[in-house]
Amino acid sequence: MKTKIGILGYGNLGRGVEQAVLRSDDMELVAVYSRRNPDSIKTVSGVQVVSTDVLSEGKEDIDVLVICGGSATDLPEMTPKYAALYNVIDSFDTHANIPQHFANVDEAAKATGKIGIISCGWDPGMFSVNRLYSLSILPGAKAYTFWGKGVSQGHSDAIRRIDGVKDARQYTVPVEAALEAVRAGKNPELSTREKHTRLCYVVAEEGADLARIENEIKTMPNYFADYDTTVNFISEEEMQRDHSGLPHGGSVITTGETGSTGMKHVVEYKLTLDSNPEFTGSVLVAYARAAYRMNQAGDSGAKTVFDIAPALLSPLSGEELRHSFL
Amino acid sequence: MKTKIGILGYGNLGRGVEQAVLRSDDMELVAVYSRRNPDSIKTVSGVQVVSTDVLSEGKEDIDVLVICGGSATDLPEMTPKYAALYNVIDSFDTHANIPQHFANVDEAAKATGKIGIISCGWDPGMFSVNRLYSLSILPGAKAYTFWGKGVSQGHSDAIRRIDGVKDARQYTVPVEAALEAVRAGKNPELSTREKHTRLCYVVAEEGADLARIENEIKTMPNYFADYDTTVNFISEEEMQRDHSGLPHGGSVITTGETGSTGMKHVVEYKLTLDSNPEFTGSVLVAYARAAYRMNQAGDSGAKTVFDIAPALLSPLSGEELRHSFL
Repeated sequence: MKTKIGILGYGNLGRGVEQAVLRSDDMELVAVYSRRNPDSIKTVSGVQVVSTDVLSEGKEDIDVLVICGGSATDLPEMTPKYAALYNVIDSFDTHANIPQHFANVDEAAKATGKIGIISCGWDPGMFSVNRLYSLSILPGAKAYTFWGKGVSQGHSDAIRRIDGVKDARQYTVPVEAALEAVRAGKNPELSTREKHTRLCYVVAEEGADLARIENEIKTMPNYFADYDTTVNFISEEEMQRDHSGLPHGGSVITTGETGSTGMKHVVEYKLTLDSNPEFTGSVLVAYARAAYRMNQAGDSGAKTVFDIAPALLSPLSGEELRHSFL
Repeated sequence: MKTKIGILGYGNLGRGVEQAVLRSDDMELVAVYSRRNPDSIKTVSGVQVVSTDVLSEGKEDIDVLVICGGSATDLPEMTPKYAALYNVIDSFDTHANIPQHFANVDEAAKATGKIGIISCGWDPGMFSVNRLYSLSILPGAKAYTFWGKGVSQGHSDAIRRIDGVKDARQYTVPVEAALEAVRAGKNPELSTREKHTRLCYVVAEEGADLARIENEIKTMPNYFADYDTTVNFISEEEMQRDHSGLPHGGSVITTGETGSTGMKHVVEYKLTLDSNPEFTGSVLVAYARAAYRMNQAGDSGAKTVFDIAPALLSPLSGEELRHSFL
């Protein structure tokens, strides 16, 4: 019996989830659900597109709904709503609002006996799990998180909103010297500026004031003002040719000590990803498998990656896992 | 209420566990148990040493017993025996015998409602967990495990058994070219010889035939014959000065693809450890915390790192974990 997956939202992440389901032999993609007119969407796999109005009736034959919406406005509303109807999973990443989101999903899911996994992906997600493992093993240790080199879609969007900008791509780049100091166990105190730089490629509209655009980017609060930012103006052709992918990655590096003589230990978890949405989608699908299993075992309520035993992510049996991976 | 820990066996690993308990505010070391005469052992922390005869009565006031014995003969007998009396954890690492060991511990622990975690540490242990996570996220991916640079105690012991050898230290060294090929996503097929080399430092007895010793090492089946091995003869002073530590580490590197266009992803988990026994002891103590909690929640039987949700390793609450680590 295959696990039946529904995908809500068909942007980059939704398509990444679709690809991950196609590569999972124990899973079956039932439908993509969208608020848009279903006739306007053609899925890569050819799976049917269904209106969210139908989904809201709560009668869809799916084991887990993977919700691929934005953290700002979509997920705070969608995840609790659908957690009352289906087992759900999302990639909510607005850190300050996680307690409220967790509480909302927990209440909705528990009321009807469903599982709702929130904040899943690689950060939050696999990076979080690695921070937790390392800091639990090494009390008093320090965990450093570096992102990149990779495309930040939020920062790219912020540049696109500037007057005179046609297209933009922003790469977050970790500072090599900072990475090396951390890996060497030097336990540095690092400011925002010392950890990452921001590298921007911008296609300007014809006749636009490039100096003004560059200045608006570099002084933009929260997004760029606290970083060393480089702005490169390029042609549309160059953007298409050199910057069409969505690579990302980064490292969680934990340094700590043990014993009476202060033995040093460095734990590094590093991701190098050709496609951020496809990897994130793959993480969501593995945890969707866990969501269904936990629910089948009688569990309900909101969960995060912290609450889920790794064995639940794999289609293999405990015996097979001990044989092959232990 | 602190979690009460007992340590069975007081070699390098037992002392590593002792140090880890001392650094864990929520834990208390009750006693070290030994088959040797308790009066002959002085613990680093000053904690009492008690005979295993007393432990076998099953009346010790401990929440978890950390069993620090050898996998060849100690653990197959000890872990099931004590799992019938206490929650236990071990670092059993004879891979081929894990199914039998798991079954034995499971039966003993379930009969009396205890938890028995087996094969915990970093490999098996944290490396296993990382293989499982990455291979579950990326179906069809390939996980490569490299060890070192670090001291292999088993290989050092094997050299010490050769006639004319006074002392020896063997370092397992990963082959840099192999590591780089894997990190680059080239998915190489690597023979044993292509993955690791073996570097030996040997103190010979006066007048011993060095050429014979070197030949005996290099041709030793299983241990050295399949590897490129370097043998260096050094003085006792050099051994003491340069090779008294027990550093170790290594990497699990998983490379896989997603999507219809074969996007590549590389996941690396890397450990660089000043002290193998102190880090292993720290992993055991974090999982001892989980063992007690699972048992308090009504669970019993044999478990591995695969079966344990990461949140159980930390003394922090779910709310604190979501706030600080997610």
